[in-house]
Amino acid sequence: MKVLIIYAHPEPKSFNSALKNKAFQILSGEGHDIQVSDLYAMKWKAVADKDDFTQLENEDFLKYQVEQKKGNLKEDILQEQKKVEWADLIIFQFPLWWFGIPAILKGWLDRVLTSGWAYSYPNIYDKGPFVQKKVLISTTTGGPEFLYSKQGLNGDLSQIFFPFLHSFYFCGFQVLEPEFFWSPTENKEKRKLYLKRWIKRLKQIDKEEVIPFSKMGEYTELTSLKKPDIDFMKRPKKTDEKKK
Amino acid sequence: MKVLIIYAHPEPKSFNSALKNKAFQILSGEGHDIQVSDLYAMKWKAVADKDDFTQLENEDFLKYQVEQKKGNLKEDILQEQKKVEWADLIIFQFPLWWFGIPAILKGWLDRVLTSGWAYSYPNIYDKGPFVQKKVLISTTTGGPEFLYSKQGLNGDLSQIFFPFLHSFYFCGFQVLEPEFFWSPTENKEKRKLYLKRWIKRLKQIDKEEVIPFSKMGEYTELTSLKKPDIDFMKRPKKTDEKKK
Repeated sequence: MKVLIIYAHPEPKSFNSALKNKAFQILSGEGHDIQVSDLYAMKWKAVADKDDFTQLENEDFLKYQVEQKKGNLKEDILQEQKKVEWADLIIFQFPLWWFGIPAILKGWLDRVLTSGWAYSYPNIYDKGPFVQKKVLISTTTGGPEFLYSKQGLNGDLSQIFFPFLHSFYFCGFQVLEPEFFWSPTENKEKRKLYLKRWIKRLKQIDKEEVIPFSKMGEYTELTSLKKPDIDFMKRPKKTDEKKK
Repeated sequence: MKVLIIYAHPEPKSFNSALKNKAFQILSGEGHDIQVSDLYAMKWKAVADKDDFTQLENEDFLKYQVEQKKGNLKEDILQEQKKVEWADLIIFQFPLWWFGIPAILKGWLDRVLTSGWAYSYPNIYDKGPFVQKKVLISTTTGGPEFLYSKQGLNGDLSQIFFPFLHSFYFCGFQVLEPEFFWSPTENKEKRKLYLKRWIKRLKQIDKEEVIPFSKMGEYTELTSLKKPDIDFMKRPKKTDEKKK
């Protein structure tokens, strides 16, 4: 497989960095081709604005998505798009900040997944351009797992990651079960076990099944599912137990 | 009331800008004090990194939240914190991009809501520092309303905004019913009606009730609610009907 790792953490000594390095090492070892976008190291521009275009269709009124569609994109955006086109699997490695992805990573979505390239109506969801590609998100949390249950204080991670994962479904990507590392800062023993679990998963990553998502045809006029209910993201089983 | 408007759109001629300007005009007219953070105009730094601190506790290993707690924050962050401390109500005005807030606004959360100031365990949720303050989010969408139902193609906005609103609950803020403007680009007539509705709401904003949220005491060991179910964000009624 061709694997693109999008990595968003400011500290090279962090556990996120270790997870990214381990992914590089293991996946290379398994014979996959790897590219890494280290957003902090690249000083990735997070903010979407008129400077993202080599020329503007309308100088007087910036309609960002309209300009995206014209395709006069700056080189940093084009480079990322080429990597996405190349990849079979994209792994996003990042810490959970404010119940979401770091701003620098949101800026990757806002700027790279351009209108006319990542989607163009009605070619969205299972008609989207990236139906052959897979996405895996891998994240660390500050708080412990028990706070993140459906009825727990911080809410369920399937709710927390609904917007992020939905963005990928929107463009057609297939989504793998997310990988969560609960409060790895707690102690070294935990981090060792986490790395072990991560290695085991990565070695089999090309054989994993994706989380099924509703197809366009399953909707009535796109306003409601013909099926009784949508379970957008299956609640991941306790990964430790599952991996045993 | 003292009202802080956090505004995140790159185009001064946009409908988002019109909504922001209308809020300024109407709320001033009603006798409220207003401050505006126009993030694009301010060239707000979106990316959280070591440059956010005047000095680092640990030069060799950036632990961002640990450094936040030390409090050696750069001036742009301190300025925003002063505005938050001053405000009774914060209005966030932004477009919905990739099922979430623009990166520049996520960068406001990541950098301004610092550990030790916006939260410090166990002073979170209804024990958080901002329990006297209110938040209102106001957003525009690209797609029409019918796509955003619970069973609809794009999912429910209460799911989409779970992470963003949860961040405010986490610090103690009271949350008002979000204001959604569905595909205002469609036509001018729609935008006129939207502005009318917005004006009507703003004139009564100080009398509105907040969306109730579970209190810490309602959890069993913080892992589950004692009540049978949590409806995190009540599905907003169709605002047009409600406002009649």
